[in-house]
This record gives sequence, C-alpha cells and structure tokens, in this order.
Amino acid sequence: MIDDTALAFPKTERNRVKRMHERGSYDREAVFAILDAGMLCHVSYAIGGQPYCTPTLHWREGDMLYWHGSSASRMLRHLRGGTPACLTVSHLDGLVLARSGFNHSANYRSAMCFGTAGIVDDADEKARAIRGVVERFYPGRFDTLRPVNAQELKATTVIGMRIEDASAKVRAKGVGDDEEDYGHPAWAGVIPIRTVIEADQPCPRLLPGIARPDGLAAYRQGRGLDDALAETQRAYEAAPA
Amino acid sequence: MIDDTALAFPKTERNRVKRMHERGSYDREAVFAILDAGMLCHVSYAIGGQPYCTPTLHWREGDMLYWHGSSASRMLRHLRGGTPACLTVSHLDGLVLARSGFNHSANYRSAMCFGTAGIVDDADEKARAIRGVVERFYPGRFDTLRPVNAQELKATTVIGMRIEDASAKVRAKGVGDDEEDYGHPAWAGVIPIRTVIEADQPCPRLLPGIARPDGLAAYRQGRGLDDALAETQRAYEAAPA
Repeated sequence: MIDDTALAFPKTERNRVKRMHERGSYDREAVFAILDAGMLCHVSYAIGGQPYCTPTLHWREGDMLYWHGSSASRMLRHLRGGTPACLTVSHLDGLVLARSGFNHSANYRSAMCFGTAGIVDDADEKARAIRGVVERFYPGRFDTLRPVNAQELKATTVIGMRIEDASAKVRAKGVGDDEEDYGHPAWAGVIPIRTVIEADQPCPRLLPGIARPDGLAAYRQGRGLDDALAETQRAYEAAPA
Repeated sequence: MIDDTALAFPKTERNRVKRMHERGSYDREAVFAILDAGMLCHVSYAIGGQPYCTPTLHWREGDMLYWHGSSASRMLRHLRGGTPACLTVSHLDGLVLARSGFNHSANYRSAMCFGTAGIVDDADEKARAIRGVVERFYPGRFDTLRPVNAQELKATTVIGMRIEDASAKVRAKGVGDDEEDYGHPAWAGVIPIRTVIEADQPCPRLLPGIARPDGLAAYRQGRGLDDALAETQRAYEAAPA
C-alpha cells in the first residue's frame, strides 16, 4: 500500500528517469500537477506481448487514476483480472530550435504512472467514479443532468489504477547550445505552444432560457486548457463528498 | 511487406477499432493526416510484461515512423533486437457536454500504429533520419546548422518502425444526446480546444543581423500547430532527397 501522506513516490527500476534524468522528479505534487492539467492521457498495456497505446480521458482521486470505456473494448476484456499498466499525460509547451541539430528539443511536461489496472466492480466506488468524471471536469454539473439509468450503468465500465510509482519530467527553458556554437550564425529560439479554449458552440437544440452555467467559468475563451483543468480539479477536491 | 501503394492498412485483430467502431478508419491518408499533424506521440512497448507509455517526438517517411533518444534509455536498450510496439498520436479538439453524463464525450483525432520497432543501424538510413528530423519540422534548416559531429552521431540512437497495420479514430461533431433528453433543461454544447503557436522567443544570444528564416513561415503566431505540422510535412515530402 502507498502512504498517501508521503511527499514522493518510491524510486524503482520501473519509474527511474534514465534519459535526461536531471529533468526528472518523483515528487507527488509534481506528478499530480501534470496529471491534473490534462484531460487526455495514453494508457499502455500488453496482451500476449503485444503492447497497445490507447488514448482516453482520465480523472484522479488521491492516488487513484480512473478512465472508462464500453464493456466491448479490447482493453476492458483484458483488464478483467487486473493487469500491469502505465498511464502517461504529456503537455507540449514549445519547440526549441538550437544552432545544432543535436540540441534541438521541446519544452514539455509529462507524468508516467505505474500500477495494476482493474475494473471497478464495487457499486459504491463505481457510482462515485461516474459522478466524479463529470464533477471533476465540470463542477456542480452532475446534479443538473438527466440522471444515470440502469442500462447506462451496465454499459459503463470504470477502470481504476492505484499509482504505485510514478515520475514527472519537465523541460521549461530556452535554447541550450554548446558554448562554442553560440557564434554559429543560425537563428535559434523557442516557439511556444499553448492548448487554449475557444468560443463555446452551444447545442442548437438548447431549450430557451438555458444559460451557460457558472460551474463552467473555468473554461473561458483564450485560457489555457491546463489552467482550467487544474482549477476544476482543485474545486472537485474542495467540494463536499 | 507492406504495399506502399495500398490505400488502406490491413484490418487485423490487433488494429480493429472495437469501441465506437463507427468512428474508425483504416485508410492510409486518414492515418497519415493525424500522424503528420502532431509532433508529440506516445510509444508503448513491454519489458517482461511491464508496459511503458513513453512520450516522444516522431517523424514519418512513407510507411516508416522514426523517433529517437540517447543510447542510455531503458527503451533503447530493450529495442536492440527489435520489439513489438504501438505508436499513437492524438489530438484533443473539444469537450462535448451533453444532457446526460453518459453522452458526455470529446472531439478528437487519434491514430494507432503497430509494428516492430528497432534501432536504425544502417549508416545511410541513420544519416537520412538525423537530417529528416530537422528538415521534416523546419524545412531548409539542416544545412544552416553547425554540422553534426562524430560524438553526436554516436550518442544519437534512431528508432524506426514500419507501420504494419494502423487505425484512425475521429469524433468531430456536436452534442449527441438521446432523443428524449433534448427536452432536459441542462446546458449542452461543445467547448472547442485548439493547440496554437504563440509569439517566438528568440535566443537572447542571437548574433546581430540573424533574422527568423523563411523556412519557419509555417509557424506563425495564432496558427494551429496541427496545420503548421501538416504543411511542413508536405514541404518535406516535396523536397528533393
């Protein structure tokens, strides 16, 4: 079991940052900040030696990561008995153009999490997760929706994974050329990249008088999606259970 | 061997789109369009049953995908003999808020590619790839840089994978509520997301008189990164070898 109060994840053979290790961290807060700033993750699992890299949406409660899908999917059938998995969230923050090909790079934030993924069978945990996936992204929204019905509950499979170990890796700086290359006459610099929220496209069939709810205030046009997601995660954690 | 002229990748047990299969495609152009619109990918591979999901940068030449790293990394040591891998590129295009929790979704484009990843040992192919990773993103740039030296060539490991099969999956539409839910008084709509290029941050040590090169014209402030990357891939494919 993981000690929820520990400040850092254990450093194991599995999560040790090997390449560019000076960019790595095992700090819980560093890992959580990267996870919480993203909605899209990629999950790796292997079936008979064949690895799959599946994009999906994730949400987090403490050390638990959740994602879901229909019970028809390949991954879900395999997960029935619990399986080793790796869930990674990455943000691309900039293209780094140096004076040599070798020193070209990217600014990024990524978190890799390891554990055993399994289907959430417990009815209470599943109900909490089904509420959580809405509330975590859209505070206060769940109770405004048409309630979940029995057929949907059956068709929804929630996958859970306790983070056993994890690492964060960040590059957030300018060009790092070899000292002797700064005199080389090539343009060099960072082209920053940002994932932003654009103007809403309300459903054309909205009922008259239905305004955009205050609970979506975090998602305002022009804002970075990472900041909005970090804010809604904090609101979710602060909300009464 | 893959027939490079085939319009579609073979449909196998491995790449068949199971969940939401109506969103899937095996069309080469559909897969390539998603791959080429991204710089960041995630690669899955397994070591002794333990899956890893590693974020990295990829580039494409025909049916070949390439990525690279230092010879110190965990993945690279494992890849020495060739290993099954799955490389996925995903774009998050919007948050889809429906009137029921079940119909909440996201707009996205993703491509999953399967094959055997191995180290590029052939000197010519490696030299071409080292040039390719610069030219593919920044047309005309390679010859303006301080030339690659022997030490860098040795420290760079290029991984290559021929795409054996692949699938693309796309959701690009508005809210899809159950017909009877359109009368439910909840706000619904799409919050579009876009990954955009911001203003350059030129290196503070730029030599006097060094202007931003015309080859970077695709990366203009406010443009979608996906469009810029698609344009530079086309320029790379059109350039004389």
